[in-house]
Amino acid sequence: MRKICLLGSTGSVGFQTIEVISQNPDLLKLHSIATYGRNPNTIINQVNKYNPKYVAVYDEQTAKKIAESVKAKVLVGIEGIMQIVEDDEVDLVVSAIVGFIGLKPTLRALEKGKQVALANKESIVVGGKLIQRYIDKIIPVDSEHSAIFQLIQNRNIQDIKEIILTASGGPFWRKKQSQLRNVKIEDALKHPVWKMGHKITIDSATLMNKALEIIEAHFLFSVPPEKIKAIIHPQSYVHSLVVLKDNNVLAHIAKPDMRIPISYALFYPERQENNFSPFSFTDLYNKKLEFYEIPKHFRSIKFAYSVLSLGGVFPTILNAANEVAVDLFIQGKIGFLNIFDIVEDTLSCYGGNNYKDLTVEILEEVNDWARKTAIDLAKKSKIYIN
Amino acid sequence: MRKICLLGSTGSVGFQTIEVISQNPDLLKLHSIATYGRNPNTIINQVNKYNPKYVAVYDEQTAKKIAESVKAKVLVGIEGIMQIVEDDEVDLVVSAIVGFIGLKPTLRALEKGKQVALANKESIVVGGKLIQRYIDKIIPVDSEHSAIFQLIQNRNIQDIKEIILTASGGPFWRKKQSQLRNVKIEDALKHPVWKMGHKITIDSATLMNKALEIIEAHFLFSVPPEKIKAIIHPQSYVHSLVVLKDNNVLAHIAKPDMRIPISYALFYPERQENNFSPFSFTDLYNKKLEFYEIPKHFRSIKFAYSVLSLGGVFPTILNAANEVAVDLFIQGKIGFLNIFDIVEDTLSCYGGNNYKDLTVEILEEVNDWARKTAIDLAKKSKIYIN
Repeated sequence: MRKICLLGSTGSVGFQTIEVISQNPDLLKLHSIATYGRNPNTIINQVNKYNPKYVAVYDEQTAKKIAESVKAKVLVGIEGIMQIVEDDEVDLVVSAIVGFIGLKPTLRALEKGKQVALANKESIVVGGKLIQRYIDKIIPVDSEHSAIFQLIQNRNIQDIKEIILTASGGPFWRKKQSQLRNVKIEDALKHPVWKMGHKITIDSATLMNKALEIIEAHFLFSVPPEKIKAIIHPQSYVHSLVVLKDNNVLAHIAKPDMRIPISYALFYPERQENNFSPFSFTDLYNKKLEFYEIPKHFRSIKFAYSVLSLGGVFPTILNAANEVAVDLFIQGKIGFLNIFDIVEDTLSCYGGNNYKDLTVEILEEVNDWARKTAIDLAKKSKIYIN
Repeated sequence: MRKICLLGSTGSVGFQTIEVISQNPDLLKLHSIATYGRNPNTIINQVNKYNPKYVAVYDEQTAKKIAESVKAKVLVGIEGIMQIVEDDEVDLVVSAIVGFIGLKPTLRALEKGKQVALANKESIVVGGKLIQRYIDKIIPVDSEHSAIFQLIQNRNIQDIKEIILTASGGPFWRKKQSQLRNVKIEDALKHPVWKMGHKITIDSATLMNKALEIIEAHFLFSVPPEKIKAIIHPQSYVHSLVVLKDNNVLAHIAKPDMRIPISYALFYPERQENNFSPFSFTDLYNKKLEFYEIPKHFRSIKFAYSVLSLGGVFPTILNAANEVAVDLFIQGKIGFLNIFDIVEDTLSCYGGNNYKDLTVEILEEVNDWARKTAIDLAKKSKIYIN
């Protein structure tokens, strides 16, 4: 029985993780859950239904409210989350809490020797250097990185000539630069394949999502940036490809269903049968799989290589500036293409130290600086709509 | 330095094997070659150029002629071939001689503990049961089986839900049954992707090639027939797919170039860089990969499952009857669809023992019977054109 600590139980990955656990009651057990605390009723329902031993809630007020309604032990704040992560009984930590807050508990889990199923992008993009030393304990949950992880299992990393990440392209990849200027928020929120949260859906539309994944792939698989490529594959059927040095290419295919990579991560290194979007040869009948170049005016891809080349705190600046810019776009304060402008300006603006030896504290500081700078830059610019 | 004994040096795989060896003079050495003896001048050229220690020639007359023109030691007949195969210096035997004659030396190589790169279809289709006990020593060379072999390396065979072989479909797969009746030999010999010998090109047109590969896959990977499927993929870019029980699918891609699987087999378990049809992410730009159902009137596929279910000598009968039928078609003696008729009738005709314990001698006997029966059936039927 594998005991699982789930960080971010009320998000999309959290829900689906609980579904996978519920379908395998003899093999998996939900040991504990942690959330920020935005949806107290959802948390209460989860606790009553799935009966975890501990619930950690970041927000103190919400924690109190929950404590009154459940039998499970309720822990509070980041320290509460740290406590459940390092509990002796926990075999695997699913790190699916959204945002910077996920980095610390992910690191703690790794330091304590726990296996970590990693869905929290920030832990890798921002904290890549910090978590890289524990890389053997990490199983990626992102569909693209799960794909690569599966393809390169037991293979020699020296044999890899190229890692090719596929991007659905989001709703706008066929649009010219001039057509992108005035796209509406509603249109940007319509993703052609995946149903996800607002932030990640906009990141799909700007292809910033793919930029962040290039950074992730670099840290997760220790492959130099120049060997990591991204292409558009509108059908989202092929999740990634690995080109080997002898010109054999391995590709990973699955129907777009996050329960598949989640299930893989929960059972790794074994595989367990499931009924999530079953695949059979007839599913390929009359199937067309297409691939296209990412148009150059999606500048996000360029940013990825640029921050990887600068290293240090730059991935953190990219991530923070993008978070702010996306937020401003959703609020209707800036246009779609201005997301790129703000990210680019914030990156150019940084005049601080590019630390060689990173710590969580340095990253937090730079993250705060970048967020503040991005907002200031936006407000001062002509692009800002009051 | 890996010393290679090459059976079938004058065929297409033979030539390409020599090319791979020549490009890696520090790692590979052509120890010896064997051929049937149809092209004495080619053999003489190969010996003078690549300097193998031994040359084995099946045909006695040709052997004598060659012995007069080369410095290498010339051996004669099947015993000569057996002798080079088991030479102590040989590390790897490439079994690429065409036809039934390939079975005995392949078996001998395996019995002597040699690694075998297997391109000889008959060794697996006909002698599957006999070679299966040495399966750990075999690296398939066929592009589809090399693909599967690479995909399932170090994976648990129990995790496989389906093996999907792709077929280019040959020149006729879009034709209706009625349109197939009068196709011409010239048209059948025009393969859309691969340039190969006549027999295998016709087998591609009838999809018998894929039927034989289903049988091969069964013996090579110890996967039951019902888990092995075939589909049409006109671009011949994806060479095979493996569906795992957790609905993750692994696919193998390469440009259609036999030097790639040959190189893989020669260097296994390592991989060596090469310049054979290099692959990079830009090769996917504007690429469409399509997949279709194999139309039911290509009865060859049905035959594959049928002979696997009957087991014993039936794969041998299928193979022999098909050889005869293809030969008659190329000679203009029967129509295209009659290839299926003759194979089916020969299979139904067999009233002999379906031996549980097969030997090479039994297989030879049944092979002879099937060839004779197929010819007799053809000649007696209304379909035969004098």
